[in-house]
Amino acid sequence: MSVNIEVLDSTLRDGAQAEGISFSVNDKLEVVQALDDLGVTYLEAGNPASNPKELEFFRRAKGLRLGNAILCAFGSTRRKGIPAREDQNCAALLAADTPAVSFFGKSSLLHVAEILRTTPEENLAMIEDTGRHLRENGREVIFDAEHFFDGYKSDAAYALATLAAAARGGARVLCLCDTNGGAFPWEIAETVRAVCAAFPESVVGVHLHNDGDMATASSCAAVRAGARHVQGTFLGFGERIGNANLSAIVPNLQLKLGYGCLTEEQLTRLTPTARHIASISNTTLRRAAPFVGASAFAHKAGMHADGVLKNSASFEHIDPAAVGNRRRVLVSEQTGRAAILPRVQRLYPEVGASDPCVGAIVDALKQKEFQGYSYEGADASFDLLIRKHMEALPSFFELISYKILDELPYGDERSATATLKVRVREQVKIAAAEGEGPVNALDIALREALAGFYPALQQVQLLDYKVRIMESTVGTGTKVRVLITSGDGEKQWTTMGVSHDIIEASWEALVDSIVYKLLEGIK
Amino acid sequence: MSVNIEVLDSTLRDGAQAEGISFSVNDKLEVVQALDDLGVTYLEAGNPASNPKELEFFRRAKGLRLGNAILCAFGSTRRKGIPAREDQNCAALLAADTPAVSFFGKSSLLHVAEILRTTPEENLAMIEDTGRHLRENGREVIFDAEHFFDGYKSDAAYALATLAAAARGGARVLCLCDTNGGAFPWEIAETVRAVCAAFPESVVGVHLHNDGDMATASSCAAVRAGARHVQGTFLGFGERIGNANLSAIVPNLQLKLGYGCLTEEQLTRLTPTARHIASISNTTLRRAAPFVGASAFAHKAGMHADGVLKNSASFEHIDPAAVGNRRRVLVSEQTGRAAILPRVQRLYPEVGASDPCVGAIVDALKQKEFQGYSYEGADASFDLLIRKHMEALPSFFELISYKILDELPYGDERSATATLKVRVREQVKIAAAEGEGPVNALDIALREALAGFYPALQQVQLLDYKVRIMESTVGTGTKVRVLITSGDGEKQWTTMGVSHDIIEASWEALVDSIVYKLLEGIK
Repeated sequence: MSVNIEVLDSTLRDGAQAEGISFSVNDKLEVVQALDDLGVTYLEAGNPASNPKELEFFRRAKGLRLGNAILCAFGSTRRKGIPAREDQNCAALLAADTPAVSFFGKSSLLHVAEILRTTPEENLAMIEDTGRHLRENGREVIFDAEHFFDGYKSDAAYALATLAAAARGGARVLCLCDTNGGAFPWEIAETVRAVCAAFPESVVGVHLHNDGDMATASSCAAVRAGARHVQGTFLGFGERIGNANLSAIVPNLQLKLGYGCLTEEQLTRLTPTARHIASISNTTLRRAAPFVGASAFAHKAGMHADGVLKNSASFEHIDPAAVGNRRRVLVSEQTGRAAILPRVQRLYPEVGASDPCVGAIVDALKQKEFQGYSYEGADASFDLLIRKHMEALPSFFELISYKILDELPYGDERSATATLKVRVREQVKIAAAEGEGPVNALDIALREALAGFYPALQQVQLLDYKVRIMESTVGTGTKVRVLITSGDGEKQWTTMGVSHDIIEASWEALVDSIVYKLLEGIK
Repeated sequence: MSVNIEVLDSTLRDGAQAEGISFSVNDKLEVVQALDDLGVTYLEAGNPASNPKELEFFRRAKGLRLGNAILCAFGSTRRKGIPAREDQNCAALLAADTPAVSFFGKSSLLHVAEILRTTPEENLAMIEDTGRHLRENGREVIFDAEHFFDGYKSDAAYALATLAAAARGGARVLCLCDTNGGAFPWEIAETVRAVCAAFPESVVGVHLHNDGDMATASSCAAVRAGARHVQGTFLGFGERIGNANLSAIVPNLQLKLGYGCLTEEQLTRLTPTARHIASISNTTLRRAAPFVGASAFAHKAGMHADGVLKNSASFEHIDPAAVGNRRRVLVSEQTGRAAILPRVQRLYPEVGASDPCVGAIVDALKQKEFQGYSYEGADASFDLLIRKHMEALPSFFELISYKILDELPYGDERSATATLKVRVREQVKIAAAEGEGPVNALDIALREALAGFYPALQQVQLLDYKVRIMESTVGTGTKVRVLITSGDGEKQWTTMGVSHDIIEASWEALVDSIVYKLLEGIK
């Protein structure tokens, strides 16, 4: 039997402190649902004292039927000199009406003096009273000891006294915070070991920040030293560099160190959950996000790609399927049949290694690369290249012509006009649109022309657009490569176009993006 | 005296293995210059055996005058059964003509058998022979022991024997690689400690990957255990999740653990260098990049912002100025006059710190940044912004209007036509041109219109062109930022344009480029 670790996610509380992140009440409810489905232990979902939106959220959250997670409100101790039952902070915490409550108090004498401006004794009383009041009102209580590691360094006895006060007050979990994110894993481990020895009856936890780029390592080190409760945010969102990243900590603990956080089946939903939460947060999941990013198991170099096919552990620290991710062998000039085959088999499982179609696809790829295409980073366009070789794809639409007029100064609001003629299901459709620039105008006109035929395109959004000149052809015949990343709320895909003309290259990438989406509909 | 640590940057070699990263020869030369200015010890800049472009780079790199860094070519051991002096890999390594060479060999018996398919003895001979051949040809030699940590776990004696072979061959540095990026810091530290004890005469190094999200912590743990050489990539670029991130490791080692990597002054250039390298790589520096990201010391309103003003160590693990970054309190942003002043003084040495023009330029900069401009990597446009504030610049020409027509299919060879009307020295000039794409057409038409007035423009060539959608503006008002690098054979300069319309943004960058060149003529 593996030792179980409690996971507390604070995406909706500490994560919302990140620059550029803000959640509506609906967003928050969606995140709660996603993380409950995944199977985290606690969801620290907001500070009800901070604004009325938080209370509205907690009211609506009560209507959710959660299968795994315990909802948790967050706040501070009672203020100095005020009994807990008369204190507004405590009242707000109870008003959230959650089964669990986490509250923070000061563990460092420096902060008691400089920030709270009260006595060491009153600080201990504030912690104990708050815990007791919450406990007496039926809450499960988690104590967050702010600045614990710094406080412990300067006065270990007082730092431990704050934990003792919380434990006396009824806190089940004593959570040690590295609030400025600067501690090293070995410092964290040593302190956690001492606290576990001093409080054998309590669950000891850690709440770390990533300023030194070590919060994953430090959280794992803390668990090895005896912590049984880990706080963080699912994608590492948080103030400054962010909080400890649960989507990296959980698989490290579970797959490599043998602790139990989620069930095996839940763990396979790690990657889809990460994409989903990134999308709710209106951010793009980093390609290089550990375990869950699109590049986490992507292999480029000829040698590595070759090695990973011979022995996957050479270049993969875990099996990507364990976290719901997958291996990708990136297509590039050095790639041979061996690297292409798994890509073909993902779409056409019946194809064998010696099938002549594989050779034909490799040849087509080389031909395209010679023209300046590079499919690395444009998986969707590569899938289309394979499919075009394997079968007669439906012709969803066909360009007859487009004309773009772009001018400066321009009369109305928009500088570009596109006129487009396409053939769709034997009909000729003409559409025109103005846009903020030529690509936007072309995009709008194309959607306009196709809207009546393919309603699924309404979900498709352009998420990123990159252009790069191609170096081998500097001088006269300069070509550009355009990469477009599109999304439909669930998944993302990237397509590519290459041309001397940036508009033509963008058009090509746009067409691939739309065809990719439409093909999915008929699979 | 602090213990010095050698820093080897592999942005141009292992970093180029990252998905979506590709460097032209010019890009590579620029990265070399930037990291040499910063002060890294070694620059592992490419694998000359991989393709002819790499050799061209090394040929041109010899022309650079490096003040700090030692250039290093990378490759593999000789092949099995072939003497080093007849081996192509070794020949390519020497052809790069660099003072230092790093070569990798297998330290794990599993890989010797499965990947190399040779005997344990031949593998040792391959390592020793390669080292000796490079050493005899005057190179400083670094041995990268691939899969060392896995190899050491399964057969420590053999793993150590591979290091002994390299040392016998003359390798100065024995660098231990965690090739699949899965090891924990405590495992790394234990193994490094054992290797240091076994090889007291050698410099022991580590080359770690970030798959477990621990490469920063593990690199620091390795140094505490005795390693004196750390490899990584400056922004953590690399295959899969990436390599160990030097921009996080160096300040941790230096500011918190007391080791010496850079001078204090060099360390203050960490953040500008990070921005510069991100820009050359056509990527956006992550806001949450440790130490160097824009959010690294950003405090959202409220408790933290208040705390940080009372006592900065509460919420800041280091002083941001030590790494050239700065604190941002997000409610009321403060851009420093101090940061702008040296830029102004470079053009106008007589300007003092309290001169009101400095404040005016800061205001103009903020205004521009609010509109989406970002002058990182566009020095020439920033110089123009300053000059426009300081004096009445000559109006070399003035746009009256342009019109671009771009169509598909197109009749003749070229898809785009530009018609342009400008006023030059009281004359109205109209020019029209066809081009390979709209920007090319516009460029040709503008040069045509100006040719008779400004013959110096004949030397100006467009060298690079990059476009990026702006991240903060997803949704309706999407803007693009265009960067154009121009050259006249002697120098290069980069200008920028921002607009909803890619053609307008390109036009703006084009105009800045030409004005920059013409201003030089009248200085």
